[in-house]
Amino acid sequence: MRSDMDQDLKRRAKKVLPDGVYGHESTKLLPESYPQFFSRAKGAYLWDADGNKYLDLMCAYGPNLLGYGDERVDAAALAQSKLGDAMTGPAPVMVELAETMVGMVAHADWAMFCKNGTDATTMAKTIARAQTGKRIILVATGAYHGAMPWCTPLPAGVIPEDRAHIQHYDYNSVESLEAAVSAAGDDLAAIFATPFKHDAFTDQAALDLDYARRARALCDQTGAMLIVDDVRAGFRLTRDCSWELVGVRPDLSTWGKSFANGYPISALLGSDRARDGAASIYATGSFWFAAVPMAAAIETLRILRDTEYLEHMIGLGDYLRAGLHQAAHDNGFGLRQTGPVQMPLFLFEDDPDFRVGFAWSEAMLKRGVYVHPWHNMFLCDAMTQSDMDLAIAAASAAFQEVRERYSSLQPHALLAQMFSARAAE
Amino acid sequence: MRSDMDQDLKRRAKKVLPDGVYGHESTKLLPESYPQFFSRAKGAYLWDADGNKYLDLMCAYGPNLLGYGDERVDAAALAQSKLGDAMTGPAPVMVELAETMVGMVAHADWAMFCKNGTDATTMAKTIARAQTGKRIILVATGAYHGAMPWCTPLPAGVIPEDRAHIQHYDYNSVESLEAAVSAAGDDLAAIFATPFKHDAFTDQAALDLDYARRARALCDQTGAMLIVDDVRAGFRLTRDCSWELVGVRPDLSTWGKSFANGYPISALLGSDRARDGAASIYATGSFWFAAVPMAAAIETLRILRDTEYLEHMIGLGDYLRAGLHQAAHDNGFGLRQTGPVQMPLFLFEDDPDFRVGFAWSEAMLKRGVYVHPWHNMFLCDAMTQSDMDLAIAAASAAFQEVRERYSSLQPHALLAQMFSARAAE
Repeated sequence: MRSDMDQDLKRRAKKVLPDGVYGHESTKLLPESYPQFFSRAKGAYLWDADGNKYLDLMCAYGPNLLGYGDERVDAAALAQSKLGDAMTGPAPVMVELAETMVGMVAHADWAMFCKNGTDATTMAKTIARAQTGKRIILVATGAYHGAMPWCTPLPAGVIPEDRAHIQHYDYNSVESLEAAVSAAGDDLAAIFATPFKHDAFTDQAALDLDYARRARALCDQTGAMLIVDDVRAGFRLTRDCSWELVGVRPDLSTWGKSFANGYPISALLGSDRARDGAASIYATGSFWFAAVPMAAAIETLRILRDTEYLEHMIGLGDYLRAGLHQAAHDNGFGLRQTGPVQMPLFLFEDDPDFRVGFAWSEAMLKRGVYVHPWHNMFLCDAMTQSDMDLAIAAASAAFQEVRERYSSLQPHALLAQMFSARAAE
Repeated sequence: MRSDMDQDLKRRAKKVLPDGVYGHESTKLLPESYPQFFSRAKGAYLWDADGNKYLDLMCAYGPNLLGYGDERVDAAALAQSKLGDAMTGPAPVMVELAETMVGMVAHADWAMFCKNGTDATTMAKTIARAQTGKRIILVATGAYHGAMPWCTPLPAGVIPEDRAHIQHYDYNSVESLEAAVSAAGDDLAAIFATPFKHDAFTDQAALDLDYARRARALCDQTGAMLIVDDVRAGFRLTRDCSWELVGVRPDLSTWGKSFANGYPISALLGSDRARDGAASIYATGSFWFAAVPMAAAIETLRILRDTEYLEHMIGLGDYLRAGLHQAAHDNGFGLRQTGPVQMPLFLFEDDPDFRVGFAWSEAMLKRGVYVHPWHNMFLCDAMTQSDMDLAIAAASAAFQEVRERYSSLQPHALLAQMFSARAAE
């Protein structure tokens, strides 16, 4: 596996970006052999800058829902681009898309479109405060809701005031949520919740029904807004807001990543309970009204409604989970596979510093399967059973390789440093 | 001029958006006859949803720099889209684009890419605090730097803490800037400045050289970061940071809107003086690493370097300004044309509630020229002298029409309400 081009690009990037690639697509906290740059993507596959091909279980960290370069979505986007994209006002597709999303998402009466998931979560926070006239926002400890100063997980340059009145509770814990609501007194504006527990570096956990219902009841009692942050999981669990699976409807839900199959658009959906607050705030962006991503979203959502994409992904996910379980077991590894099968996370038993997971991930990469050692992954509709067979076969060989190298494994230097800094806090 | 389709879309939008179109492309604060939705754009022209055609002097509020649907830029974008857009990592074009921008912008040693102008300004603020370890950010009163809670001009849902340690000074005033820096004591993190004064609802003003130099000197003395917010004016004044025209180099500059000719990308550029701070913060977005807008930007920037786009726009702007001056004078109007000729603003003498400007703008619209009554406009490279002749001829007829209707003009209801609310503050 050559990697000259990637190494060269990394060297160049280090000069003209502050310290190489930043943000969630940086490989700084990934195994050494992971490529940073990709030259091509199609369907379920990805090619790095050196031409190596991978079955991509990250799906661009979510946006790739139907397959890279889906021809149906690309055709809709291209048709709109020949008419207009960013113009002096929105195109009719903006109304059509809002009607489509309001029609698909049970709790939603209205929509706002933006560019980043963080735009949507920040608007949700602001609208909750505008709607209620109150200040306190409850967020589950460890949950990711974006990268603005009020929510970024690495708060360099953030001042305490940026997070004023942001309070925490433990996800899935009725007791902790009740205590936080009680502590908020008469000043509770909103409760944020992810669809399930999908924090990095730790096992994923399904949504607890009592917790979800209690969150709704507490918002009803206090007048606060219930916000489900569906940016990461939206339309990968159901063709509606993810909490609709348990029959609990939020006042606001945030969307992004996948609903235009990779075209840049995110959304905030809301019920009439939050409409006045939403109408009162000022939020905007240079490209928020651009028509091409909206046309792509309309076509993506049509495909979601008209095809078995979801059942297909779940079928593949079940198959992959069973196959990996068997392969791990056969090789004497305790592989913890958590989360919905179509958004899996793979962590190893007895691997506190992730050295086993990193080694296994590198062994998978070498065999043409791109997996992530500490962040949930994503399946897409373009994957097939033979892709899953490829992943399972790669996994068997990778388990064997790691078993042979087990005693010589070392932790990743930067990750180890990060963990020890956290432990010292 | 039919407007059935636009009216129908507005009615539908009112249901499925919180209160119709939000943000800077909402027509709520524009004359009644202005269309909200556009079905098509090409070159310098725009068609509304009812098929009416306009010479578009707003250029999508900036993004349209070369002309809508520029075939060179669209070809570069399409070629990249066939390879990949949002992937699990960036494409090589990310490095190429960073090298290109660092090569063009004299003060820049590195680049970060994002989606909204507000992403770039917010990162600049956060980096300034990370770099200096200090808190106070100075912003000119009335300047627009985006729509996040720390900077949005309409602060519904914003709490005082969101703006903690944001202090104000008067643009172009050395005395006011010195007083604000002095008041910041040992806690100054940054001074924000726009390239020139381009606030809405008021005459634009050129940059005062003493003020620019003093801002630089004060940052050098205190260790604070000087930030030029070039989101609106970037590459419309010069092929470099706008303050390069006066020889003053910031530490950070923010870019957006136009450098990919309408494809969604913004950027933060910085010098080595701010590199450590930039490397330390965490900021990211689902689509920040997408390759298509980067490929579009590379081609746009090539065109900016290789063609006379800027000189062409300035020539047209001079011609338009002279023609409008004459037409206004001939009809007895005092038309105040301010700002760079390629980013003009038209306000009327003796028009405190904008009723004359609104009536004239409507009269222009009726004649196929889209002008804005209180926000600076933008020329683009696709415009021609005959387009300017069209605008000047329309203006002559519009002045005549307004003169005839003068005594019966009424102010715009919502704008009047906004002004009286501000006056009461």
